[in-house]
Amino acid sequence: MPSHSTIAPELIREAAAFLAGKIRQTPLEPSPELSRILGVPVYLKLENLQLTGSFKIRGAWFKLGRLGASAVLTCSAGNHGKGVAHAARALGIRAIVCVPSTIDRAKYNGMLALGAEVRVAPFAGYDETEDWALAQSEAEGLTFVSPFDDYDIIAANGGTLAQEIVEERPEIENFIVPVGGGGMAAGMAGHTPARRIICCQLEESPGLQVSLDAGRAITRLPAIDTIAGGIEGGFGKLPFSIIQSRVHQVALVSESEIHAGTQWMLDQHQYLIEPSSAAPLSACISGKIRPLKGPVAIVISGRNVALTVIKRVLSASW
Amino acid sequence: MPSHSTIAPELIREAAAFLAGKIRQTPLEPSPELSRILGVPVYLKLENLQLTGSFKIRGAWFKLGRLGASAVLTCSAGNHGKGVAHAARALGIRAIVCVPSTIDRAKYNGMLALGAEVRVAPFAGYDETEDWALAQSEAEGLTFVSPFDDYDIIAANGGTLAQEIVEERPEIENFIVPVGGGGMAAGMAGHTPARRIICCQLEESPGLQVSLDAGRAITRLPAIDTIAGGIEGGFGKLPFSIIQSRVHQVALVSESEIHAGTQWMLDQHQYLIEPSSAAPLSACISGKIRPLKGPVAIVISGRNVALTVIKRVLSASW
Repeated sequence: MPSHSTIAPELIREAAAFLAGKIRQTPLEPSPELSRILGVPVYLKLENLQLTGSFKIRGAWFKLGRLGASAVLTCSAGNHGKGVAHAARALGIRAIVCVPSTIDRAKYNGMLALGAEVRVAPFAGYDETEDWALAQSEAEGLTFVSPFDDYDIIAANGGTLAQEIVEERPEIENFIVPVGGGGMAAGMAGHTPARRIICCQLEESPGLQVSLDAGRAITRLPAIDTIAGGIEGGFGKLPFSIIQSRVHQVALVSESEIHAGTQWMLDQHQYLIEPSSAAPLSACISGKIRPLKGPVAIVISGRNVALTVIKRVLSASW
Repeated sequence: MPSHSTIAPELIREAAAFLAGKIRQTPLEPSPELSRILGVPVYLKLENLQLTGSFKIRGAWFKLGRLGASAVLTCSAGNHGKGVAHAARALGIRAIVCVPSTIDRAKYNGMLALGAEVRVAPFAGYDETEDWALAQSEAEGLTFVSPFDDYDIIAANGGTLAQEIVEERPEIENFIVPVGGGGMAAGMAGHTPARRIICCQLEESPGLQVSLDAGRAITRLPAIDTIAGGIEGGFGKLPFSIIQSRVHQVALVSESEIHAGTQWMLDQHQYLIEPSSAAPLSACISGKIRPLKGPVAIVISGRNVALTVIKRVLSASW
């Protein structure tokens, strides 16, 4: 893999054409309150309203459609797995999803309901679970689908998202996104060289920040106890090679700031989102985003959250 | 007012044309679990994803657009008021919204943020608040906009909803809807004479059922303590004259069934909706819907719900 990779614009266009009519065109909703806080117009791309409850269906469906395999094995903290399960059912493919032991019950049930075979690992974090999943795919001769370390996934997850946003509002100059393995951020960087990308992740699991500091992708981090499992763990090699020179800022947020961001979304826009998706909101309302010029789009990545997590995240204010 | 009124199909088409491009085209989402329970295909019309958080923006905007007044006064348990506030801002009109003392904080803040003047009545229920609002509109010479007792509101709120649903799925034979003043149900009846309408309301505030029993609209009921303020109170005169011969079933649900329905929606579809909107789901999962032939559309009417209400509604399972 080259140290600086790119995503071909044609691949993003191909992904967008493939997904048209299959997924929802989600709204780009103005946020008066965030516009006031950041001092520039702010819009929320509501992928929490996407089919399967998150943007991950984009990459999963495009990848499985291109693969043409009769069975796949993947690893996921939940949303990618739901996307794979949905796409596999639509395409008539067998899907096996390996998940960490900390898997959110709503996500687990969602994958089962979509007909996927779900294997729960004896590990709490994403990274060890992926090693466990890779060993199984090898032993069973099944194609492994990475949630983020894959050109097709990156092009469809982040690339088509960026394309939709700027088609609706070409004036957008900044993207603020939650970052886990880096697939979304890398796809957005691939689509749009001229726009700034602000990446938000957990203070306790700063995969992108440590990778930037090291000058190479740190793909494994120790598992942490977090309510935001979707953005926990190391950074992907391929996403890093695409994005390392394109990151405008990494904003790190604490667990309690994640709680506050989730509550803020409910209070201001009346959507219950998953805590991982609140990271950019948390960064904005806690003053961690450096001053920006021009309009901003924030990606709200998903809504899959179990009742127990809702209780935990909202209890701070009760 | 004639004892049997109808909604002109042209008025519904006019409302739909007026609203096109102004509001969101919300998804019609399959519900595998409700399909299993009712034994027929079930789809959820997700007006909880609508602008301002509920379907009420349809009627409010169309009405204000047709009125051409420079100021209006209305009365609302919240969602109609948010719709009026949004439309008034878009049209450059002054909006005054009278609300009961029990107003949901999320809805109250939402109306203020949209620039409306909100007047809180010294009454807990909708009906007394409306009397109070009517007296003010008279004293101040302001046009009163009823949330449901109005041809334009009925055509736009229920009529355009029914039209959207059957345009997407012409095979739908049944609508299951939450019922307060009756505007949505009447508009749906007006659109589609051939389809069955099942109306869901609170056992403790059964405005439609008592009206059917009496053979005339019972427009005033005593205020009750409920988490579902949007479907509390008497039934509208005009909606009753439209719908009285068209109601296939009235399903009455208890307060605890409303809680269960709200939780069910979160668990099965990962949307947090307001308890009033859960009434049809509550009726389905508690076995109160009589056997139906043919596909069903259930209208999920809104998502505006304060943190305190979420705590109350979800606490049963904690």
